Amino acid sequence: MFDNIKIAVDAMGGENSPKKVIDGILENYKQNKDIIYNIFGDYEKIKSLLPNNYNKQIFNITDTKNKILDTDSPLSAAKKGKDTSMWLTIQSVKNNESDVAISAGNTGALFVISKLNLKMIENIDKPALSALWPNKKNFNVVLDLGANIECSDKNLVDFSIMGSSLFKSLYPNDDPEVALLNVGSEELKGNDIIKKAYQNLQTNKNKNFNFQGYVEGNQIMDGKVNVIVTDGFTGNIALKTAEGTANFIMNEFKNSMTANIFGKLSSLINIKNLKKVKNKLDPRLYNGAILIGLNSPVVKSHGSTDYIGFSHSLNVCIKIVKNNLIQKIKDNIIK
Amino acid sequence: MFDNIKIAVDAMGGENSPKKVIDGILENYKQNKDIIYNIFGDYEKIKSLLPNNYNKQIFNITDTKNKILDTDSPLSAAKKGKDTSMWLTIQSVKNNESDVAISAGNTGALFVISKLNLKMIENIDKPALSALWPNKKNFNVVLDLGANIECSDKNLVDFSIMGSSLFKSLYPNDDPEVALLNVGSEELKGNDIIKKAYQNLQTNKNKNFNFQGYVEGNQIMDGKVNVIVTDGFTGNIALKTAEGTANFIMNEFKNSMTANIFGKLSSLINIKNLKKVKNKLDPRLYNGAILIGLNSPVVKSHGSTDYIGFSHSLNVCIKIVKNNLIQKIKDNIIK
Repeated sequence: MFDNIKIAVDAMGGENSPKKVIDGILENYKQNKDIIYNIFGDYEKIKSLLPNNYNKQIFNITDTKNKILDTDSPLSAAKKGKDTSMWLTIQSVKNNESDVAISAGNTGALFVISKLNLKMIENIDKPALSALWPNKKNFNVVLDLGANIECSDKNLVDFSIMGSSLFKSLYPNDDPEVALLNVGSEELKGNDIIKKAYQNLQTNKNKNFNFQGYVEGNQIMDGKVNVIVTDGFTGNIALKTAEGTANFIMNEFKNSMTANIFGKLSSLINIKNLKKVKNKLDPRLYNGAILIGLNSPVVKSHGSTDYIGFSHSLNVCIKIVKNNLIQKIKDNIIK
Repeated sequence: MFDNIKIAVDAMGGENSPKKVIDGILENYKQNKDIIYNIFGDYEKIKSLLPNNYNKQIFNITDTKNKILDTDSPLSAAKKGKDTSMWLTIQSVKNNESDVAISAGNTGALFVISKLNLKMIENIDKPALSALWPNKKNFNVVLDLGANIECSDKNLVDFSIMGSSLFKSLYPNDDPEVALLNVGSEELKGNDIIKKAYQNLQTNKNKNFNFQGYVEGNQIMDGKVNVIVTDGFTGNIALKTAEGTANFIMNEFKNSMTANIFGKLSSLINIKNLKKVKNKLDPRLYNGAILIGLNSPVVKSHGSTDYIGFSHSLNVCIKIVKNNLIQKIKDNIIK
């Protein structure tokens, strides 16, 4: 049995907010009855988006008049800070009034405000931004995706510990298979930092995950490993390159499917199969990047996702609290 | 008018060699009558793959008994070196007997043997491996793809100079639009090296190409820029991630198209349109990575491509010689 899980939600971040956020909460509530949503944002607007007779215990609104804009620099956001919906969302986990925080707003600002307010987990040096990425079997956890442009070998080992904990929280029945993203699979490939991380992970076997060595970019999606560790510069570029490639190919297919009467006819016949592919690749399914390493988890929803995507990222919040992500990280640290 | 272009061809590298190489040469010869192919490899085998009455001036075989294996380390390949088909192919450009060298063999070995035999272009510090990558409009040149795991800001500026020269050699009618691959498009993003390269390219405008600042991974294929510059670690991972993503999606589509009778029927109706997509994305079309920075160009064909792919990489050889790639690089260097 669990106490009700309390999610602190920044209602004002991202495109079409607060509507997309509140619709996402209502969608999420359909499948989850044991959640309390601590919502931070414009009270009147939020209220008008909820049913008239909404339950004030479950949908607990705190009125905030100020908000962080996407155009704010992380520094100006932090200064603006204390009465914004984002700051108060993070404060809510800091004060133990919520178990996890979520925002679809400005990533840089969310990162800085989280670091200012929340403490690092002991023995972890830097927090990392991690996300889900589809593979042939199911999903990978990939980190870091841009929180740390430069990383030490210790950081990469930390990311392995945190990434495998996150994977286990999201997929409790599977074993985390960890690999370092590199330019070749032989031991001598790569730079000094990655080689040192390899040595460390190889020597100090961690009982909570299997270290599988190096993978190359073309192996990310083949499903042989499920936790992919890299520095934030490389990870960000790899993720965005994959997004760009997927969009490019989907567009080429779309154009070919509607180019002429044969294309139109065939896609009509095949609509169910094509939908299956589209659904499998639907980025809303794996919406929600997770900032880990701080003593509370912070989830970043994509700014441009819709209410379905936001609801999925609320599911990520629920899973990582239910399955004790933070405790799992602490258990994985070899002292 | 040009003299005949002389291409030094390592016939023994890559899968299914020398058959795929010789078939590729014959395919290439159908469209190009002003080429001399200086072929290095097993004379008897090569002869048996050519027509009985082949023209010995055009298909000029040098018998070599030894060859570099894919399993050779770069160092052991270099030691084995001097009587191998790969070494003699590179010697042929060194001795001005050929204008350009090509091999489908061991990349690391080709790189080391080229560096041992050929001089760097003056004022270029490191050679780079570059390749073509499709975008919405046509093709990008992307470099470095793994020759240099760590790069200085000067290297990135050199890559811009070389990449734009290569683009202009391949697409003489288009202007090179150069960008640095980064984790954001704002000036303050990225590490110190990339910021210094940005400053340099911004300050010292080069009349032979337009510098367009930063692009992110998801913008590589949108066609707004056409020369993408990055260090070899990031470039290798980006390219392979794109390959892996493309394969993943193509497989999902393939499976959906043949999953049941509706899928089969629809792909039958749509076969011409789908072929068009497949052709556009056919990796054989952009086969041929180019090692640039040495005083002769060296082309690396993919080891697993077939004769069509090899013929395409011979076309790359022809274009870069016809359009004076090396002279273009020298002209682009600001002294």
